[in-house]
Amino acid sequence: MDKVEFKSSNRMANVSGSVIRELLKMTASPGMISFAGGNPGEFALPNDQIAKIASDLLLRDGKRLLQYGATEGLKGLIEVLIPYLKKEFGVDVTQSELLPVSGSTQAMDLLCKAYLNPGDVVLVESPTFLGNLQCLKLYETQIIPVESDEEGIKIDALEEAIARYHPKMLYTIPTFQNPTGITLSLERRKLIARLAAKHQLIVAEDDPYRSLRYDGPSLPSIKSFDESGCVVLMGSFSKVISPGLRVGFMAGDAKLIRTCTVCKQSTDVHTPLLNQAIIEFYLRHDLLSPHIQSICGEYTLRRNAMLSMLAEIPAFKHFTKPDGGLFVFAELKSGLNAKTLFEQSVKKGVAFVPGEPFYPEGGHLNTLRLNFSSSSCETIVKGMSILKDCLNCL
Amino acid sequence: MDKVEFKSSNRMANVSGSVIRELLKMTASPGMISFAGGNPGEFALPNDQIAKIASDLLLRDGKRLLQYGATEGLKGLIEVLIPYLKKEFGVDVTQSELLPVSGSTQAMDLLCKAYLNPGDVVLVESPTFLGNLQCLKLYETQIIPVESDEEGIKIDALEEAIARYHPKMLYTIPTFQNPTGITLSLERRKLIARLAAKHQLIVAEDDPYRSLRYDGPSLPSIKSFDESGCVVLMGSFSKVISPGLRVGFMAGDAKLIRTCTVCKQSTDVHTPLLNQAIIEFYLRHDLLSPHIQSICGEYTLRRNAMLSMLAEIPAFKHFTKPDGGLFVFAELKSGLNAKTLFEQSVKKGVAFVPGEPFYPEGGHLNTLRLNFSSSSCETIVKGMSILKDCLNCL
Repeated sequence: MDKVEFKSSNRMANVSGSVIRELLKMTASPGMISFAGGNPGEFALPNDQIAKIASDLLLRDGKRLLQYGATEGLKGLIEVLIPYLKKEFGVDVTQSELLPVSGSTQAMDLLCKAYLNPGDVVLVESPTFLGNLQCLKLYETQIIPVESDEEGIKIDALEEAIARYHPKMLYTIPTFQNPTGITLSLERRKLIARLAAKHQLIVAEDDPYRSLRYDGPSLPSIKSFDESGCVVLMGSFSKVISPGLRVGFMAGDAKLIRTCTVCKQSTDVHTPLLNQAIIEFYLRHDLLSPHIQSICGEYTLRRNAMLSMLAEIPAFKHFTKPDGGLFVFAELKSGLNAKTLFEQSVKKGVAFVPGEPFYPEGGHLNTLRLNFSSSSCETIVKGMSILKDCLNCL
Repeated sequence: MDKVEFKSSNRMANVSGSVIRELLKMTASPGMISFAGGNPGEFALPNDQIAKIASDLLLRDGKRLLQYGATEGLKGLIEVLIPYLKKEFGVDVTQSELLPVSGSTQAMDLLCKAYLNPGDVVLVESPTFLGNLQCLKLYETQIIPVESDEEGIKIDALEEAIARYHPKMLYTIPTFQNPTGITLSLERRKLIARLAAKHQLIVAEDDPYRSLRYDGPSLPSIKSFDESGCVVLMGSFSKVISPGLRVGFMAGDAKLIRTCTVCKQSTDVHTPLLNQAIIEFYLRHDLLSPHIQSICGEYTLRRNAMLSMLAEIPAFKHFTKPDGGLFVFAELKSGLNAKTLFEQSVKKGVAFVPGEPFYPEGGHLNTLRLNFSSSSCETIVKGMSILKDCLNCL
C-alpha cells in the first residue's frame, strides 16, 4: 500500500529544526573537541550526590513521588523556590506566582501558548537564543530584532521599536546572554521594567546563567523592578545542577501563571515529581551555593583560557569578555566566513556554532559562538590552536 | 502602580482548565475516598525497586544521564521499545519511527502542534478523555463526536462523519477506554486502519491501558493493521510503572515522527534522561511483565468489587463491565443528576467525576466515571455504600 504523506501545520512553515541540535548530533563523534553546545562541564554534574538523594527520596517518599502530581508543581519545591528567588534574583513572589516547569524552554513555550496569537510582534535581542527563536516561529509571531551593545539592549532602539511595531512581548536574556555572554546594565534593567509597564509589554526575562558569575557583583533581575506584573522571569537548574533532569520555573503575575498552568495541563500534565523533589532537596539543604562555588573556580579558568587563546589569534577582530555564563561570541575579520571555518575545523576535530542562525535577520557570516564550560583548559588550548591553524589556511 | 492585565491568546477561548484536575485538588483532603482520578493503586508503584535502579544508574552512568540529551530520546530506551511494541502492540517499528515523550499527553500535544491548523476537524469518541479534549481546544480544532456502542466507535457513524466533515484526524482510545472502559473490537480495528488510508486521516491511537487486562485475550493495536502510515500510536508507562516519572512514547511514520521531534525541540528539549533510563532498565531486564502480573490480580479484585456494588444499587440503570483498565462508566436512572450526587457525596467523603465534561456535545447529566484502581476493595465497598445512601436521599 502507498504511504500517505500528511501536510504539516502552517506553524511549521520556516521551521526546520534547531541548527545547534543538528550540529551537536554531527559533532558527537568520539574525540571531537566541541565548543558547540551549552553543556555544563562533566565535572560539574553531581551524580554521586544525586544518586544518594534520589534513592533516599524514593525509599522515604516514593509512593507520592511516583504517583500523579498537581500541574501547579510540588508544594515543597515551591516553598524553597520563594526564598531562592529572593536571594538570587531579588524577587518577592508568593506561591501562586510560581510554576515549576520542565526546563525554562517549557516556560517560554507555555507563555507563548497562553498569550501570543499569530502575527503578534515579539522583540528580541539580535543575536539571541536559537531554541526560543524556533519557539516564537512555531507560534507564528513576527520577530523583530532590537539593537544591542556591550550593555545589552539599547533603550533608544527599544523605544523606537515599541513605537513602530506595537509589540506584545520582549524576549530577553539579561545576564551572560546566549550567544554573546553580554550582561544588561543595572540602569537598563530598571528602564525596561518601566517601559514594559508604560506600553503594556510582556517581558519574557530568560535568566538561566546568572549564578555562574566569575567577576563583578550580581545584578538584580528585571523582574525585581516590576511593579506592574509585566515581567515573567524564567529560570532553570540546567546550568547549575543538571540539564538532564529538566527542571526550571517561571515567576509572574498570579493570573498569568494560572493561564500558563492551564496550558501545561494538556502539554505534559506536570513536571516529573522525582526531578522536582531532587531540586527541592538541593535547595532545602543548602547544597546549591557550595556546589556553584565549587564549579565557578574551574569555569573561570576555562573562560580565561578561551579568552587568552582568542587574544592570540589575529583573525579574530573582536570577541566578548563575559563576566560569567558559558559562551564567548567572536567576530572574524571581514571576508572570513565562520561556516567555511566550521567545515574545515570539524574535519580536524573541532566544532563550534557559526553565528548566523542566532540573528533573526540573518547575515553576520563572520561571527561564531564558542562554549568554554564543557572543555578542560587543556582541551580549550588544543582546540583553539587547531582553529588558529584552520584560520591560517582559510 | 496598577497591575497590567494581559489578554490571553485566542486559543484560550473556551478553555478553562481540566475539570478533573480541579476536582482532584478539591478532593485531595485527607480521608476522602476518591473514585475520581486515574491513579494507579499505591501498592502498584514500585518505589523500593526504582530507588535501587535510579541510584545504580546515576552511580554508573550519571555523567551522561545528568547532561543534555538528544530530543530524539535515549538510544537505549528506543532499542528496548522496539521489541516491546512488537510484543505488546503487535507493531513493527524502526528507530526513526519512535519518539520517547514526556507522558503520552505530550505525544498528543506534539501531534497537534505538528499537523493541525485552527478549524481542522477532529473526530472523537463521545465520551472521551478530558485532557485531550482540552488539548484539541487549545489547537482551535473543530471537535466532532462519533457514536460508539459496546464495541467502540461505530463504523457506519465514522464513515458518515468522514463524508460529512472531511476530518484531518480521528482521536481514539481503543482499549479500556477513558472514561467508559469499553474496548474496540478486532474487526473495527482493522476497518479503522483501512478507512484512515482511504480517506487520508491521521489516527491518533491512544493506548495507555492495554496491559492492564483482567479478562479475555489481548487485541492487536489499530497501528498493527496500518500499512499507509496514517496511524500514530501513543503509549505510556504511567499506568504500569509510574505516572510521576512522565515517560511515554509515540510511534508513527518516520517523517511524521521527525516533524513532531522538531516541535519537541522547542517544547521541552528532551524528556528527562534519568526517567527514560529507569524505563529502559525496566524493559531491558524484563521487570515489566512480572510487575504487571503482580498488580493485575489486585486490580481484578478491585474491579469486581466495584461491579458488585454497582449491581446492588438500583439507582444505576446501566454500567460498563470493562475487561481491564481503571474505570467503570455508569448511568443513573433518568431524572437523577450526577452533579447533584457529587455535591452530596463529597460532603460524606466520596468523590468521583460526573460524566458531562467527557462529552464534547455536553449533556448526559446522569452519567459518572468511577475509578477502581486506586482504592482497596474494602474502601470501594465503603465508598459505594455511601454513594448508595446518597442516592437514596436524592
